[in-house]
Amino acid sequence: MPVEIREVLENYKDYLGQDLVLEGWVKTSRDSKNFGFIQLSDGSGFAGIQVVYESDIENFKEIAKYPIYSSIRVEGELVESPGAKQPIEIHAKKITPEHLAESDYPLQKKRHTFEYLRTKAHLRPRTNTFQAVFRVRSLIAFAVHEFFQKRRFVYVHAPIITASDAEGAGEMFQVTTLDLNNPPKGDDNKVDFSQDFFGKHTNLTVSGQLQGEAFATAFRNIYTFGPTFRAENSNTQRHAAEFWMIEPEMAFADLEDNMNVAEDMLKYIIRYVFEHAPQEMEFFNSFIDKGLIDRLQNVVNSEFVRITYTEAIDILQKSGHEFKYPVSWGIDLQTEHERYITEEVYKKPVFIVDYPKEIKAFYMRENEDKKTVAAMDLLVPGIGEIIGGSQREERMDVLVEKLKDFGLDEESYSWYMDLRRYGSVVHSGYGLGFERAVMYITGMKNIRDVIPFPRTVGNAEF
Amino acid sequence: MPVEIREVLENYKDYLGQDLVLEGWVKTSRDSKNFGFIQLSDGSGFAGIQVVYESDIENFKEIAKYPIYSSIRVEGELVESPGAKQPIEIHAKKITPEHLAESDYPLQKKRHTFEYLRTKAHLRPRTNTFQAVFRVRSLIAFAVHEFFQKRRFVYVHAPIITASDAEGAGEMFQVTTLDLNNPPKGDDNKVDFSQDFFGKHTNLTVSGQLQGEAFATAFRNIYTFGPTFRAENSNTQRHAAEFWMIEPEMAFADLEDNMNVAEDMLKYIIRYVFEHAPQEMEFFNSFIDKGLIDRLQNVVNSEFVRITYTEAIDILQKSGHEFKYPVSWGIDLQTEHERYITEEVYKKPVFIVDYPKEIKAFYMRENEDKKTVAAMDLLVPGIGEIIGGSQREERMDVLVEKLKDFGLDEESYSWYMDLRRYGSVVHSGYGLGFERAVMYITGMKNIRDVIPFPRTVGNAEF
Repeated sequence: MPVEIREVLENYKDYLGQDLVLEGWVKTSRDSKNFGFIQLSDGSGFAGIQVVYESDIENFKEIAKYPIYSSIRVEGELVESPGAKQPIEIHAKKITPEHLAESDYPLQKKRHTFEYLRTKAHLRPRTNTFQAVFRVRSLIAFAVHEFFQKRRFVYVHAPIITASDAEGAGEMFQVTTLDLNNPPKGDDNKVDFSQDFFGKHTNLTVSGQLQGEAFATAFRNIYTFGPTFRAENSNTQRHAAEFWMIEPEMAFADLEDNMNVAEDMLKYIIRYVFEHAPQEMEFFNSFIDKGLIDRLQNVVNSEFVRITYTEAIDILQKSGHEFKYPVSWGIDLQTEHERYITEEVYKKPVFIVDYPKEIKAFYMRENEDKKTVAAMDLLVPGIGEIIGGSQREERMDVLVEKLKDFGLDEESYSWYMDLRRYGSVVHSGYGLGFERAVMYITGMKNIRDVIPFPRTVGNAEF
Repeated sequence: MPVEIREVLENYKDYLGQDLVLEGWVKTSRDSKNFGFIQLSDGSGFAGIQVVYESDIENFKEIAKYPIYSSIRVEGELVESPGAKQPIEIHAKKITPEHLAESDYPLQKKRHTFEYLRTKAHLRPRTNTFQAVFRVRSLIAFAVHEFFQKRRFVYVHAPIITASDAEGAGEMFQVTTLDLNNPPKGDDNKVDFSQDFFGKHTNLTVSGQLQGEAFATAFRNIYTFGPTFRAENSNTQRHAAEFWMIEPEMAFADLEDNMNVAEDMLKYIIRYVFEHAPQEMEFFNSFIDKGLIDRLQNVVNSEFVRITYTEAIDILQKSGHEFKYPVSWGIDLQTEHERYITEEVYKKPVFIVDYPKEIKAFYMRENEDKKTVAAMDLLVPGIGEIIGGSQREERMDVLVEKLKDFGLDEESYSWYMDLRRYGSVVHSGYGLGFERAVMYITGMKNIRDVIPFPRTVGNAEF
């Protein structure tokens, strides 16, 4: 394989004066009577390289007419280019077309709206914005893995197809191989799912947490990182039907430990991206979200605040601020409340803990006050909630009561209760919506623009 | 959090003579009149630590009765233990129960069959075999990421829910939110999928390759690593309905480059596991698959063989060996043929390339002979095919013909054809079935035993 352009740019001093063969796509092209310039990109890094050719090159006139995004092969010398944006350029000796793009290429030079680019999801990663977004997405994913693997957490693939509903709520996608035009029916004239592929009714998972808990009682520290699904009919900038979740689960760890890991993780990821994608971060800061870099640097350098829900309610009530949703103890905090606390009051990330038990999931550990549970939400400036977690209820008797209170069937949680029957331990975990993290770190505002091929209501193209 | 047992074992010299607090589960327990021994495990590493307590400890008699897999807290001094399996042990000063397991714990000390353990998938990771399997599974996953990230490949999350069928074949799971007892019907009395969540009929993906190709024309080198699905009604040791796939895709790369990357990747993964899980590998070699370590070392140290399909047929025909499936040019190679070549003839991994086009997918690049395509399969001793890949057809006109030959609808591949319309390039990629790699490296023989919660015909428990 010919050398990658990223490699040449990063270590150009090693290549200066050498004849190189490069392959890539024509990003821009301009020419005058005696010269031509091509911005050549091979996607290996954010920047392309400038190719200069002179009128004595073979096919001078044809080269100037190569359509945008034609793939070409360039042979030439790497030379210094004083005064230019890049310190070097290729002085071409031979340029050969590999494939000339058709001239109706849908992404010509002029700017396109993100809406339009969504209709070209197979081509948009070729644009600067989406080059940056999807490379950073990849780096964040790897940073997550590296963070947990360094701490020896075991990566667990939770099942995607499931017969249970982790949250005891949530609208789910059904999975079936039945002939939907003519499904088998039982005596009650209802569909007979015992004849379906798995012998029962199955759905796409909404969370891997419960399975993660099982593995935490074997490996102490584990994490999941996989796709999850919500069949919510909501058409917002923040909701997708298919998204990825990271769910660590830790045995012998309480809520405090949980917050420590979440804080360390978020800082690790941000630092990793700054280190591995400085050009992309500069791009976002200049063109997508001015102030992004300062905001993220502030997160890395802050100690996160930790307050209780009761304190948060108190702060909101005494703030004198007019909220659209009135504040009183027992309400679920709205984004406006969350953002007020993290952006106006503290100006840095804030953990809120100990929420009223009625507004949180059944598996969260009940506190001594019997009114609150050991839940935690992490709020960050610019976005609001980014992580939600809790210490889990490890006491068998309390959990049985909770299942009843939530109207859940104990029988279908029987294996989950086994984790309390045999060697139950204090344990905790949290969930990070991966796309929300990508939006937060890139400054992109619509979840459709951080997912390669987004799935939302009415949209499963490509 | 108290210190992890793995940390104490790995760096025991730093802790000798210190008083430590450890938490973990009772793996085994025995006692005599004046002494008791507990094997304490917290899952942080493959080995537990021996805890010794004497008759003068508080609750001496109770401690000896703690049921298996009770969770306990141990305070005591780390002391040398000359002559024992481990160089150190904990001399306990205080042992406190955190939770006493119920006495009917389903995994008592005696050995259980893998079949039985599958019915306890939430508990089996607590056993030695599955501790080793799932830790190695996690390490292999990370090694894959690290291999590609070091080479700056971009990790792409291909969509899980899709309206297309990548392979143009394969039985797929349908995904729907329609009320299956009472679905909306059209004038033709068929289910009206325009009223379904995505406004059309959708399935679970069988491969992320086509979407990966789109990203390779933007980033040059990419890889996917995500779940894929097959609704095949086959009940074998090697098939699951839900499994994970790794699919790199490289622009400006031909079949030779493709093989180089596949070979490097496989060697990288094996080396990584040897380095990070030596105890687990010894365990597999002793108890699961004698000869495993030698076989894998041989892979790491071999240069893989590369032969054509035509050569392979010739070798098989001249071998004098009786095969169940007769050999002639044009057949799809069976496992017996593949294993004969890799195990008997070469005794190391073998790439076979240039298969008859009729037995391979439509997107594989047609060779000059017009009879074969630039496909590659990697065969390894002990398992047969482990990787399948190809150079992709980059020529628009040839691809249009292939779609026709395969009876596929050009319209639904329109976005895929765009990749040939605009800057088409020589490109290649392959697929590695992740579970097959885990089986190969652990020596486990049933795919159900390398997946945390396996999904197969009739089975979607947990």
